[in-house]
Amino acid sequence: MRRKEFRDLADPDEAHEAIASLDLRADDETVPLREARGRVLSERIDAALDVPGFDRASVDGYAVKAADTFGADEADPVELELVGEVHAGAEPDLEVGDGECAEISTGAVLPPGADAVVMVERTDTDGETVLVRTSLAPGDRVMFAGADVAAGERALGPGTVLTPREIGLLSALGVDEVPVRGKPTVGIISTGDELVRPGEPLNSDSGEIYDVNSYTTATAIEEAGGEARLYPHAGDDYEAMESVLREAASECDLVLSSGSTSASAVDVIYRVIEETGELLLHGVAVKPGKPMLVGRLDGSAYIGLPGYPVSALTIFRTFVAPAVRRAAGLPEPRTATISGEMAVRERYSEGRLRYMPAGVIEDGDGNTLVYPVDKGSGATTSLVEADGVVAVDPDMEYLDSGEKVEVQLFSADVRPPSLFGAGEDDPALSRLLDRIERPRYLGVGSRQGIRRLRDGVTDVAVVSGDAEPDDATELGGWTREWGLVVPAGNPDDIDGLTDLVDRELWFVNRTTDSGLRSTLGDAIADLADERGVDRHNLVSAIDGFEFSVRAHESPARKVLAGKADVGLGLAATADALGMGFVPCGTETVRVYGSDDRLEKPEVERLAAVIDDGASVIESLSGYDSQ
Amino acid sequence: MRRKEFRDLADPDEAHEAIASLDLRADDETVPLREARGRVLSERIDAALDVPGFDRASVDGYAVKAADTFGADEADPVELELVGEVHAGAEPDLEVGDGECAEISTGAVLPPGADAVVMVERTDTDGETVLVRTSLAPGDRVMFAGADVAAGERALGPGTVLTPREIGLLSALGVDEVPVRGKPTVGIISTGDELVRPGEPLNSDSGEIYDVNSYTTATAIEEAGGEARLYPHAGDDYEAMESVLREAASECDLVLSSGSTSASAVDVIYRVIEETGELLLHGVAVKPGKPMLVGRLDGSAYIGLPGYPVSALTIFRTFVAPAVRRAAGLPEPRTATISGEMAVRERYSEGRLRYMPAGVIEDGDGNTLVYPVDKGSGATTSLVEADGVVAVDPDMEYLDSGEKVEVQLFSADVRPPSLFGAGEDDPALSRLLDRIERPRYLGVGSRQGIRRLRDGVTDVAVVSGDAEPDDATELGGWTREWGLVVPAGNPDDIDGLTDLVDRELWFVNRTTDSGLRSTLGDAIADLADERGVDRHNLVSAIDGFEFSVRAHESPARKVLAGKADVGLGLAATADALGMGFVPCGTETVRVYGSDDRLEKPEVERLAAVIDDGASVIESLSGYDSQ
Repeated sequence: MRRKEFRDLADPDEAHEAIASLDLRADDETVPLREARGRVLSERIDAALDVPGFDRASVDGYAVKAADTFGADEADPVELELVGEVHAGAEPDLEVGDGECAEISTGAVLPPGADAVVMVERTDTDGETVLVRTSLAPGDRVMFAGADVAAGERALGPGTVLTPREIGLLSALGVDEVPVRGKPTVGIISTGDELVRPGEPLNSDSGEIYDVNSYTTATAIEEAGGEARLYPHAGDDYEAMESVLREAASECDLVLSSGSTSASAVDVIYRVIEETGELLLHGVAVKPGKPMLVGRLDGSAYIGLPGYPVSALTIFRTFVAPAVRRAAGLPEPRTATISGEMAVRERYSEGRLRYMPAGVIEDGDGNTLVYPVDKGSGATTSLVEADGVVAVDPDMEYLDSGEKVEVQLFSADVRPPSLFGAGEDDPALSRLLDRIERPRYLGVGSRQGIRRLRDGVTDVAVVSGDAEPDDATELGGWTREWGLVVPAGNPDDIDGLTDLVDRELWFVNRTTDSGLRSTLGDAIADLADERGVDRHNLVSAIDGFEFSVRAHESPARKVLAGKADVGLGLAATADALGMGFVPCGTETVRVYGSDDRLEKPEVERLAAVIDDGASVIESLSGYDSQ
Repeated sequence: MRRKEFRDLADPDEAHEAIASLDLRADDETVPLREARGRVLSERIDAALDVPGFDRASVDGYAVKAADTFGADEADPVELELVGEVHAGAEPDLEVGDGECAEISTGAVLPPGADAVVMVERTDTDGETVLVRTSLAPGDRVMFAGADVAAGERALGPGTVLTPREIGLLSALGVDEVPVRGKPTVGIISTGDELVRPGEPLNSDSGEIYDVNSYTTATAIEEAGGEARLYPHAGDDYEAMESVLREAASECDLVLSSGSTSASAVDVIYRVIEETGELLLHGVAVKPGKPMLVGRLDGSAYIGLPGYPVSALTIFRTFVAPAVRRAAGLPEPRTATISGEMAVRERYSEGRLRYMPAGVIEDGDGNTLVYPVDKGSGATTSLVEADGVVAVDPDMEYLDSGEKVEVQLFSADVRPPSLFGAGEDDPALSRLLDRIERPRYLGVGSRQGIRRLRDGVTDVAVVSGDAEPDDATELGGWTREWGLVVPAGNPDDIDGLTDLVDRELWFVNRTTDSGLRSTLGDAIADLADERGVDRHNLVSAIDGFEFSVRAHESPARKVLAGKADVGLGLAATADALGMGFVPCGTETVRVYGSDDRLEKPEVERLAAVIDDGASVIESLSGYDSQ
């Protein structure tokens, strides 16, 4: 096995410099004004015409010679002869002489001879003459040509990001095509023979997994103002990789490779760049992200991202996105970071800059709390269980609870959750959460739910059975029927827990944090009491009692896949999957709110949702609202 | 003239309620994952498969039976027989028996018989056997099937906005099409026969102006998550308006009319809605925006925006955008508002809720200052001279200097300027500003520049001639040649200022705030001294001395258009426009930074830009850097 060692890891600043040395800029281009939103002007635009282009009435009324109105007031109006009218969008076909006036609409051209407009509200007319009840100065209620924008004036500078208001100014100037910075084209090459594009069939037995990084990175590139182009995976051998890299290099301003976590696939890319291009940097002293590559190939820029999704997005966000934005002429979004306080103490001492995945939640007083999310770098779920990363300096030994930190969000559009819960995995809860705006819920089991509530991170804990968190208030609950999930028709004719103990059946359990497993344990203890034997005797008689899986449907799905005879589960799960079910009892599921968080709007809302949710809860087989 | 009076103005809250009562939601739709960025899930997505779908090696190394490694350490390794290898993306073709191991890549399927993986770093091999230098527990370095996401788990809830990380999770689940909220389609109908689409020829003599609101509103609709559709202007008469309104109503979830400031065009729309649809509300007690209409037409929703651009965008942003976002399922962007302190006192007492256009700038200490921008509601330039609006309650008599206010930005993408200057309008300055990021500069003349610097709002003042602001430091300057701009070839054979006084020539001057006009005034005073006459005698002998226009090119353009014989201007302007020029002298232009703001980065940068800018400055005819 050929393996690359990263002996001389570059400093993160060197990585930024290496990337800054790459030229990612696309050619400037011209786009229709209608499609220019969010684009960046590449040139200054000076006004080519006056706005308005003529002396314009600002109100509906009468165009007059101001001198004719001298001395007029409510008590002593001046009478003028009405000689015609001027509409907006029409050329005046009359002239206003001494003692004359013309009806005029807002926006119409001031007719020759007139130098002011009187509002209709200050006049009366019989259709032949007009009584003007106020004195006017020349220019009153007239917007002179060029008063808004004068021809030759600087309108917008290069680098201006076009939002609705700039589009408005350009419209006023009659500009319908705008010179803008080109969007850098970024090619994405997926490496790793095991990766399959979403939507295609997956063969798990041969270790295939869906390609997470290609679409994630493409989306992040578009967010940064680039244009993403996905290249089909051609294979991890040298020739295939060289060919697709060169094709991408000839078509793109930057080529990213991303995908594989396998060292051999990464090695191939490394060799292609080293042998046919120019390698600027190989390996950076950051965690995650060590195996980053930076180089050039056939006049294009190249960056190799690490393979794990959270690592790839972290490195993209931290090192690559700023360069893409710079090339696109866009500033960093103001919402790219969030400040908060560490909710817990987090140890660290690896001597490398670390980007710690972190979640964000508001406490009951409106403070922003930040907590580490550590599911291992391979977990895709870290992407949604964390909101971003906190940079932790190499010489930092720990982040203390309460310490101020800055979270670099995975995207400027990421919104931290408005409700954070953890605990029992339950299908009714899953449906009720649909009615909450931006919930985050970790189905880590009742025990972990209680622990996390105690740690002061979560707002709510969801607990099955009799366990109960401290300093928390019940928001509501329901009961669910639990038992043994078996194949449809119950082919083994299983009758209850006694069969598990007394017969040769392969069982699948839930993990120890699961409240459902505790309920099963209690039932087995009761059975042991009944039989007058030790609980452990019964447990050890169950084949697969220690074979535990994580989520509420998982045991049933093992049975469905033919990998076991019977699984611990819910009546609702058996019903949903069309399987057989042997009921063993009912247990309660209760939702508790931390006493410090009871006044958070979404905590109150959750209580209301449970209260109103009887029909949702009872639509599930074996469920009863309380 | 038929005019609508807004006798019973609705309360702004009623307007919000009337709009909330409209149904703007589009049908849900399904989009490819690749195009799902920024879209909003319409349904909960539960995982349909386990991620990973198999027990997966987390490192490169060897798959083993953990029990075989019991007691192994650096000093006392265990020797296992190497029976083959398993690559990522391949189905294992071997089984690991007692005392055996298999080479395995990160991401590969754990072969049957194995229950742990040892990192390659803790082993040695001769190709036939492997020395394992550590003890393993079952499950070490293995990610079990479903450990990341378990089939049946809640993955993402309805209402989730899709950013790169959610796209990543959906990729991992193999989802390539996502159910999302439809974008509400918003039709825009432009009213007002005087309006011309940008890019088309404009006839100013008949009062035509470019249509600002259609593109501005379309862009703002897209920002709010809607899809904008522009309808061609068919004419302001009843039949044409009814026909286009009904066409739009049949194709859109919401129809907006926008454009005309003329009461008669607005009246036609009012009649169409009243007679063929349902009018919910007519006129709202806000400034600007009084003439807002809300109603229904043929099953679609209808809102009439006011005609002036700033009013239209203000009403859209405040009343319509929230409804479009709600229909699209999007939250208000976090950057939609900015807080700051009033830089000056602003009086108000109109008894109506007022949306005051306001600009935002940072002072030298990093505080955000907010200042009113009042150019009259007809001015397009208010769009870019203000950053948004401040809501001022009807019973508020004034906003005090220093008072905390919140600015509702015209767009969440609006970035307040990093440098704010005002003063002399000058083409060299215009070019130098191209090198500053996000400058705002108002060419209001030297006098106004000095006044605004004194008011503590601007960072810099640009002054021509000898005037000088207090408490300010010169950042740099240049000289420019000024004189009389005449038609090419100087057909009237004008020689200098004396011709203006002694001959019958039509002159165009600059406005009184212009430094160039002061310089002209001084030159005329010198001529009066020379002749031993009063300055006023000379001034009154110049036809058009009081006919003043606003910007540095404006007098020249009047001459170019044949509306005058000679204009006050710069050698550079005559050169740029290909006109004749009679030099009268040179004057200095100096850029001053407020002493409180000298350390603002972009103020320092402006000084450097002037210092480095000799080539830019001297590229202009008659300019000299100092």
